[in-house]
Amino acid sequence: MRISNLTEFEKISLPKLENEMDLYLNSLNSNQILKESMRYSVDAGGKRIRPLLVLISAYSLGKKISKSDYQVAGSLELLHTYSLIHDDLPEMDNDELRRGKPTNHKKFGQAIAVLAGDGLLTTSFEWLSLTDIDNDKKIKLISQLALAAGPQGMVSGQTDDILGESKKYNLEELKHLHAGKTGALLRYACVAGGILSDASDNQLELLRKYGENFGLAFQIYDDLLDVIGDAKSLGKNVHKDEIENKNTYPILLGVQGTKEALVEVLNNTENLLKEMANNDIAIDLFEQLLDYFKVRK
Amino acid sequence: MRISNLTEFEKISLPKLENEMDLYLNSLNSNQILKESMRYSVDAGGKRIRPLLVLISAYSLGKKISKSDYQVAGSLELLHTYSLIHDDLPEMDNDELRRGKPTNHKKFGQAIAVLAGDGLLTTSFEWLSLTDIDNDKKIKLISQLALAAGPQGMVSGQTDDILGESKKYNLEELKHLHAGKTGALLRYACVAGGILSDASDNQLELLRKYGENFGLAFQIYDDLLDVIGDAKSLGKNVHKDEIENKNTYPILLGVQGTKEALVEVLNNTENLLKEMANNDIAIDLFEQLLDYFKVRK
Repeated sequence: MRISNLTEFEKISLPKLENEMDLYLNSLNSNQILKESMRYSVDAGGKRIRPLLVLISAYSLGKKISKSDYQVAGSLELLHTYSLIHDDLPEMDNDELRRGKPTNHKKFGQAIAVLAGDGLLTTSFEWLSLTDIDNDKKIKLISQLALAAGPQGMVSGQTDDILGESKKYNLEELKHLHAGKTGALLRYACVAGGILSDASDNQLELLRKYGENFGLAFQIYDDLLDVIGDAKSLGKNVHKDEIENKNTYPILLGVQGTKEALVEVLNNTENLLKEMANNDIAIDLFEQLLDYFKVRK
Repeated sequence: MRISNLTEFEKISLPKLENEMDLYLNSLNSNQILKESMRYSVDAGGKRIRPLLVLISAYSLGKKISKSDYQVAGSLELLHTYSLIHDDLPEMDNDELRRGKPTNHKKFGQAIAVLAGDGLLTTSFEWLSLTDIDNDKKIKLISQLALAAGPQGMVSGQTDDILGESKKYNLEELKHLHAGKTGALLRYACVAGGILSDASDNQLELLRKYGENFGLAFQIYDDLLDVIGDAKSLGKNVHKDEIENKNTYPILLGVQGTKEALVEVLNNTENLLKEMANNDIAIDLFEQLLDYFKVRK
């Protein structure tokens, strides 16, 4: 029977996801400290939103979720974790706290943190390439992941972000930055689920749009939390954006304007959900995912 | 007509390799400074030994080298370049000079250097996954490359190297370090050429062994040059190993013992070449490659 409740879906799928990540990371024949460092950041937890989007996208097109789906989802979480480790480095955002724990370089030193990031990035492609799905699908996933994660996606956005500390972006430039920095992996997550479930081109495009909207909402919400949230419940320092002279929505639009921008994105997404439903995509779980941007406020 | 002279082979193939790398890097839709930084290190040149090994391996099994072979070879050089950028970082080997030019982080700053490395690593998989060869071969190449480059290969060796600065390895441990740090990509290079030319399992194994021997000779030679070479002709600082308390062959075996170890590896490789010749692999170019370890001394 179909699971239509997000909490229940998470309760069933997230332990299986964790288990697959555990198994693969443990199986690596590698330097012990490097493995520990990689595992440290993966085990730090987090919301697992990207792999969850992979699984929900596949499931919502009618796929029965299998071991290889968890592996594809897990490989994305490894890649995301690499990006966090490198983003936190002293030469980048210089963060000391992540998910309530010392960041990787605070725990293992800067050299090992660079290597753990490099290792997780490479392992993501390694795992994906060894997963038991057919090669044509694998190549689609690998090329889409690389395009999303690399200099045509996330790494470009991260560069925009770092270089932006010394200048002010306008709204268009800020959106472009985030479309790369956070948007690209979230779009990939939805598209990957679609590829796994043999989505039509039209369905893939709708999933991509959902990922895009979700990414936009995610970033606006994240910027808001940095202004109005508190460190304890977030597990990381707040008011960092302002201190670091980052380009953010609240700085461009003010807190009220940023809240309005978030509502607008969520309204657009509600319309998109209708279109998804008209194209044989179950929207119940996608809809509940949007509560993320309401409940925690 | 078959090219049997290495210099001639390089003269014909290297410009085509450079051209393919140029084309792909220029085509990237990315932050301009990130692109510049990636190109800076790729354009710094170097001997292009890894892509050359890919091409020679494919060619020596009778393959007519085509555009996609240059792309597979080029994707490996991008990955190698990422590893140099990250290795040179202040938290790693802290090198200021590479191939006679300022290292990436000296030129672009540490944050951009981390991102340029991340970008090149990801681009390597991206390019490989988009190359026009059949998907089964691509998956073989991608998985082999990831295994060679990641925590089960190069990144593990690099971690051994960094952590070894505070302890002394024995010969076995030193060999293990280098089998990862430099050996893994050189083995992959030879195997990749074999995959491209539909080598038999037996031929693949011989190519892998050649890569292994080449890697061993390469590292011993590199360690020797650090002791007996000069900065000007090498384009990088010398005597760094000693200063940084690195584990090296000369420290373990002395200069004379290291020279003898190199001769031994080269003798073993001569025997391997005979076996390769008996298995329908043309060995002329492989043989001339070994001159690299003699001429420059």
